[in-house]
Amino acid sequence: MRVAVVGGGVIGGGWIARFVLNGLDVAVFDPDPEAARKIADVLDNARAAYAKLTLAPPLDEGNWHLCDSLEVAVGSADLVVEAVPERLDIKHQVYAKIQAQRPEAIIASSTSGFKPSDLQKDAPAPGRIIVAHPFNPVYLLPLVEVVGGPNADQAVLDAACAFYAEIGMHPLVIRAEIDAFLADRFLEAVWREALWLVKDGIATTAEIDDAIRYGFGLRWAQMGLFETYRVAGGEAGMRHFISQFGPALKWPWTKLMDVPELTEDLIDTIARQSDAQSGAYSIRELERIRDTNLVAILQALKGQNWGAGATLQAYEDKLYARAHSRTAPDLTGPLRLVERAVLPDWVDYNGHMTESRYLQVFGDCTDALLALIGCDASYHTRGLSYYTVETHIQHLGEVAGGVAIYTTTQVLAVDEKRLHLWHQIHRRDDDHLLATAEQMLLHVNTQEGRACPADANVLGKAREIAAAHANLPVPQAKGRYVGERR
Amino acid sequence: MRVAVVGGGVIGGGWIARFVLNGLDVAVFDPDPEAARKIADVLDNARAAYAKLTLAPPLDEGNWHLCDSLEVAVGSADLVVEAVPERLDIKHQVYAKIQAQRPEAIIASSTSGFKPSDLQKDAPAPGRIIVAHPFNPVYLLPLVEVVGGPNADQAVLDAACAFYAEIGMHPLVIRAEIDAFLADRFLEAVWREALWLVKDGIATTAEIDDAIRYGFGLRWAQMGLFETYRVAGGEAGMRHFISQFGPALKWPWTKLMDVPELTEDLIDTIARQSDAQSGAYSIRELERIRDTNLVAILQALKGQNWGAGATLQAYEDKLYARAHSRTAPDLTGPLRLVERAVLPDWVDYNGHMTESRYLQVFGDCTDALLALIGCDASYHTRGLSYYTVETHIQHLGEVAGGVAIYTTTQVLAVDEKRLHLWHQIHRRDDDHLLATAEQMLLHVNTQEGRACPADANVLGKAREIAAAHANLPVPQAKGRYVGERR
Repeated sequence: MRVAVVGGGVIGGGWIARFVLNGLDVAVFDPDPEAARKIADVLDNARAAYAKLTLAPPLDEGNWHLCDSLEVAVGSADLVVEAVPERLDIKHQVYAKIQAQRPEAIIASSTSGFKPSDLQKDAPAPGRIIVAHPFNPVYLLPLVEVVGGPNADQAVLDAACAFYAEIGMHPLVIRAEIDAFLADRFLEAVWREALWLVKDGIATTAEIDDAIRYGFGLRWAQMGLFETYRVAGGEAGMRHFISQFGPALKWPWTKLMDVPELTEDLIDTIARQSDAQSGAYSIRELERIRDTNLVAILQALKGQNWGAGATLQAYEDKLYARAHSRTAPDLTGPLRLVERAVLPDWVDYNGHMTESRYLQVFGDCTDALLALIGCDASYHTRGLSYYTVETHIQHLGEVAGGVAIYTTTQVLAVDEKRLHLWHQIHRRDDDHLLATAEQMLLHVNTQEGRACPADANVLGKAREIAAAHANLPVPQAKGRYVGERR
Repeated sequence: MRVAVVGGGVIGGGWIARFVLNGLDVAVFDPDPEAARKIADVLDNARAAYAKLTLAPPLDEGNWHLCDSLEVAVGSADLVVEAVPERLDIKHQVYAKIQAQRPEAIIASSTSGFKPSDLQKDAPAPGRIIVAHPFNPVYLLPLVEVVGGPNADQAVLDAACAFYAEIGMHPLVIRAEIDAFLADRFLEAVWREALWLVKDGIATTAEIDDAIRYGFGLRWAQMGLFETYRVAGGEAGMRHFISQFGPALKWPWTKLMDVPELTEDLIDTIARQSDAQSGAYSIRELERIRDTNLVAILQALKGQNWGAGATLQAYEDKLYARAHSRTAPDLTGPLRLVERAVLPDWVDYNGHMTESRYLQVFGDCTDALLALIGCDASYHTRGLSYYTVETHIQHLGEVAGGVAIYTTTQVLAVDEKRLHLWHQIHRRDDDHLLATAEQMLLHVNTQEGRACPADANVLGKAREIAAAHANLPVPQAKGRYVGERR
């Protein structure tokens, strides 16, 4: 896809950042004289976030450039992202220019609320104009609401969705067009309630935010409204839970349904309370805090392969597959078997990766090596496996949460029943050696619980690697005991 | 606080679980013949979640028991949690009985919406009745909305808030009483919009949930509505952002403000869509998935010391501090510092405790020993700590999930900067030796990242234990290296 973006504000800049970090070149049009700086700022944030988001080998960044006119920007685009202000007249003018210049391009509007049929009005090719509504920060949040409206061209929607999935997003096709689609319906409803609460002096902006982020906000990062209530309903089931809820809808709990008037007074109150709540941080600092939090949450959910974490996992798998398809593993040097970031919950009270997680990473190295020599799930079902009988660990440096690490594994010796391994954990940024592990594994018959010779195939592959490693330098600390003088 | 809980459903059971896991004994009244089983199920979930929530030494579990009458249950309670159905007449009856039996107790209602003044009506001691509204799952989500109403007794509110903070929650005092308080205002608003969307066939329950959890749900796990918009507003500031928002409130984006009628048809539709969305999992499985996700999110935020993660961090600090202040055991023999069961998720594909969990248990031994010699949270804040530099592990036997184990720790040697330890893990049933660890720890200045002599007090206590252990037999495998002939 050759992409162009019209409008380089918070949303347009977020799209540009996502495209560039996915290796795409982007042509941009924005008449704002500050546009270049603002886009560069968003891209800086996005780069910082992606550096922590995934350990998968990153794609080479694409290039972006500002064009002198809209016509030049969209001149060779397959997809034009529209992110101009929410005024229908402006959007119509932009679409007319785009379709005059580049009729074959898909135009994807970032609008938060206009229906496709509103946007498509009087367009020469209405079916090529769709809504693709993203969420800020666009480079991190996976959701994009894709709406075609009654004039939708299914091939256009399919192409758009495939593209969004390719760049790590979760396209949600909204079948029936309505104003504000799905997510902003909810945001508007909450916003309305919140304005009343501030206006009536019931709660401050900080209290309202706390009521969200210490409670249901945590739930909604992983399950939505209905699944949450299904679980809360417990054994009685969803039907029972919903029926129960009926009366409450008539109670005064929902009375705040008028639209509050946004007076100067109310605006003052909100601005003042927001300063008191968040004014200790600059917007730039808050953006970094938000992004770091979102990255940590996405990775937490990736660990469970759930929701937005599953989207991230699929994205990573694709990046790894792309990298692996380039080269076969080279057995001649120490094997680089594990690449990952230190997870937030791996950190102890000293702020460093806790010691048992080192052994977990070393265990992952061993598992990866065993897989490589054919000691895999089907081998285990035959009642054969390797057990670790002895480990010596040296902790040589500390590593904090979020830091990227990789491992190397050297096969020191192999015999019929034993595998003698040497693992190392390095920081990825500077190759700094963080820890070593020397391990002895014993091949066992797991049913009888006793040592036995490994299968010939497994042994053959292990010996092949050991032979390739025979000329590597012997690690200095091999055979070291605890407390031995260095 | 001596606590009683009236009502053992999802919410009452969640309170009981949080109390028990915080070492409190709980008297419970619930006439439901299934109550004991339901509470035990919730407690099982909570135990599984807490085992992953924190590495801090857990408190000894409290006990809970069902009482034959409400009067017996509340007989000696300082705090009575009311979690009965949302019917004001039932609540009034319960309060009358409690205040007749135990007038000095604080009564904390879990109601989602009744105002304190409604609850307090005609009560002999209205000021002792408050709202403390938690969020499901109560044992994991930190938010509790605390509302006193116009008859509030400030001392009662203060005591309640201190207590909730003590058990790891985030009490949010709501100064003005309104129906449904804060959070449920928002939940009701979203719920109303969602019902319309399903009723009008715009989206299914699964699509609605995806519109939440892939987008703004991720934002709200860490920043609320106002802080999110402050950031989104960017450099132009909150005032500008809010002013812009004014017109949108008048647009048709917010038209869905009527209350939809909850007809049999609509209930059917929701139940059917929910089955299609989530029916592949049992409620029990969904509970576990939800809890595991929430634990991961809480830990992710703990890594940033932000929001609900900061609450968890403060809770952990307290657990560590408490563990450190416990009384010294008999120092003359090997120290029995850790007792626990092997958790189900500690088991690898061979069906045994996975190797990194052995080191986790050994690490717990080390932490417990360090606490014993005064290397605790306050010592850490002085920039002093012990780091493990070297470990040798022997795996001598396998252990399956659910099996009880205990550890012993022997101090082999102490000098100004070094601690030389020997740990063993035994099966509790038959004292069978499962694994040994020899560890060398180095005392460090954590700010400067270099070794330094331990504080005199810490050193004194370490030497005291080393002296007491001087006559113990030296472990045969002390100084062993990997692969050494036995």
